[in-house]
Amino acid sequence: MTAINRRRLLATAATLSLLFAPALPFLRQAQAQTDPLPSWNDGPSKQAITGFVARVTQQGGPDFVPPAERIATFDNDGTLWVEHPIYTQLAFALDRVKALAPLHPEWTSTQPFKAALEGDMKTLAESGEHGMAELVMASHAGMTTAEFEKIVTDWIATARHPRFKRPYTELSYQPMIELLAYLRANGFKTFIVSGGGVEFMRPWTERVYGVPPEQVVGSSIKTKFQMRDGRPELFRLPELNFVDDGPGKPVGINEYIGRRPIAAFGNSDGDLEMLQWTTMTGGARLGLIVHHTDAEREYAYDRDTEFGRLDKALDAAALNKWTVVDMKNDWKRIFAFE
Amino acid sequence: MTAINRRRLLATAATLSLLFAPALPFLRQAQAQTDPLPSWNDGPSKQAITGFVARVTQQGGPDFVPPAERIATFDNDGTLWVEHPIYTQLAFALDRVKALAPLHPEWTSTQPFKAALEGDMKTLAESGEHGMAELVMASHAGMTTAEFEKIVTDWIATARHPRFKRPYTELSYQPMIELLAYLRANGFKTFIVSGGGVEFMRPWTERVYGVPPEQVVGSSIKTKFQMRDGRPELFRLPELNFVDDGPGKPVGINEYIGRRPIAAFGNSDGDLEMLQWTTMTGGARLGLIVHHTDAEREYAYDRDTEFGRLDKALDAAALNKWTVVDMKNDWKRIFAFE
Repeated sequence: MTAINRRRLLATAATLSLLFAPALPFLRQAQAQTDPLPSWNDGPSKQAITGFVARVTQQGGPDFVPPAERIATFDNDGTLWVEHPIYTQLAFALDRVKALAPLHPEWTSTQPFKAALEGDMKTLAESGEHGMAELVMASHAGMTTAEFEKIVTDWIATARHPRFKRPYTELSYQPMIELLAYLRANGFKTFIVSGGGVEFMRPWTERVYGVPPEQVVGSSIKTKFQMRDGRPELFRLPELNFVDDGPGKPVGINEYIGRRPIAAFGNSDGDLEMLQWTTMTGGARLGLIVHHTDAEREYAYDRDTEFGRLDKALDAAALNKWTVVDMKNDWKRIFAFE
Repeated sequence: MTAINRRRLLATAATLSLLFAPALPFLRQAQAQTDPLPSWNDGPSKQAITGFVARVTQQGGPDFVPPAERIATFDNDGTLWVEHPIYTQLAFALDRVKALAPLHPEWTSTQPFKAALEGDMKTLAESGEHGMAELVMASHAGMTTAEFEKIVTDWIATARHPRFKRPYTELSYQPMIELLAYLRANGFKTFIVSGGGVEFMRPWTERVYGVPPEQVVGSSIKTKFQMRDGRPELFRLPELNFVDDGPGKPVGINEYIGRRPIAAFGNSDGDLEMLQWTTMTGGARLGLIVHHTDAEREYAYDRDTEFGRLDKALDAAALNKWTVVDMKNDWKRIFAFE
């Protein structure tokens, strides 16, 4: 943190204390003033983050990076919020298929829809990428972008996670929310670069992560412009446009952002190429992987899992000196509601 | 302009005058304090712009738009800089074909390369979209993104416009540069949404327009991630990815920005759908078309021209009450060097 930002933070804290002093315990104020990452335990992960930020923001220092070039990219599923037992977007697709089933009587005898309607996750998984694509097309296409936004907004407000019984948006990781804010306070521009559908994320990323729609990169289907009843609209077509995963992530970063990040955050092999693209280029760079090691408070998984497999990227982390966050030991708390 | 922003402008001007007062004529200071658009003559176009900005920034007013939603999109060729006698990017492609010709002896007898090498614009035009695509693939693909960026940067620094004998980047329109800055000073986020190649624009848009790479949307070819000698790179493939023109502009706006603009600026039929998408939706909106009416200082053309044809969009402007800028009468000066 630069001296100027620290001063600004202190000034803000001072103003807040004037306004709210009677309501806040003294300890909490003191902590807010001194630690921008209160949900992180002290240790090598936290030090790697704060050390990197100190280096790239030190005016005149050898690793200084001008604010305009301080681009940080974050994977979403498993990095910013829970991805188990299934990706949230798959839960959305399954609910959509159920809602649309009355219009499609043939689905009760056609795969993968039959499996989706029966909650038969084994058969669903066996339907592979082709089956998943069919589910996505049936549930994400065939309406305007405005209609889809409303469907997502309504769903995300009411759906509940099967284990935590809370809205998915409450299952974002508090340490990562603090990290996003900390980077922004130090002049970074934070982007989401996710394999998830971009129009599934944009309706809520600003509220949950402070990341506006124009800083969300994701997978997409094609849309078509048309005038209907004298009104312009974009119609969502059942055709894949871009897959923002694995080697697609650097491609997406280049296409949608047009600058190479100096920090990248992921949790799985789908983030490997994004971390390579970000860090293997000279200069001070931060690559960080969230390792799910806490079966009690969240989940524990890495090499042998269906969603968010962390195998090659874990080996690459050791080789490339990426920071591997041990959720169980590095995170004081995982969710804001704890 | 809100009271707060006016105060900030006055404060900045006051600070500047303390620093530079001895060097600046008094009149110029006074003008900078009172008129954010000094290269615009008073009249309906200027009034439409300032009136719109006043409405959407008036806190508590019926047309107020929160800063986060103040998205403005600008076409580039013919809207922000000169596009005659040929698009700058086509001049670039022709120079590239000449530079690469020694490696391709077959080009002296193959169209459209023969025409490109001989400067035979008639035959080149007759080769149509297919011919243009061949030129673009031959000149824009087959290297890494880093290599292409250097090629563009070197070319844009040395190439000269055939009529004005100046770098193309000096042929940006001063009134539009002022307009971009005026909108940003009023909380707008300014984007370029151009049919031109996104990687042809990004190396210089920040310097020339104050628009950073991540706010440039354009046409693109596909890229492929690969590791070469242990270094990650993106290789440019001779395959079209996205055409950001006509109905592609609202598609691109939705895909790359993810918010609907409240103001859009164009000069040709290629901007028609962007202006429809922006303005035909209720609420205070600004659609503006630059009409090239000044053959003496720049060029005069509309319905009957090859580059930047303004025909359907001119009819639509009358119907939809879009502002049509008459370059000859609305712009006090066109270029900064005048």
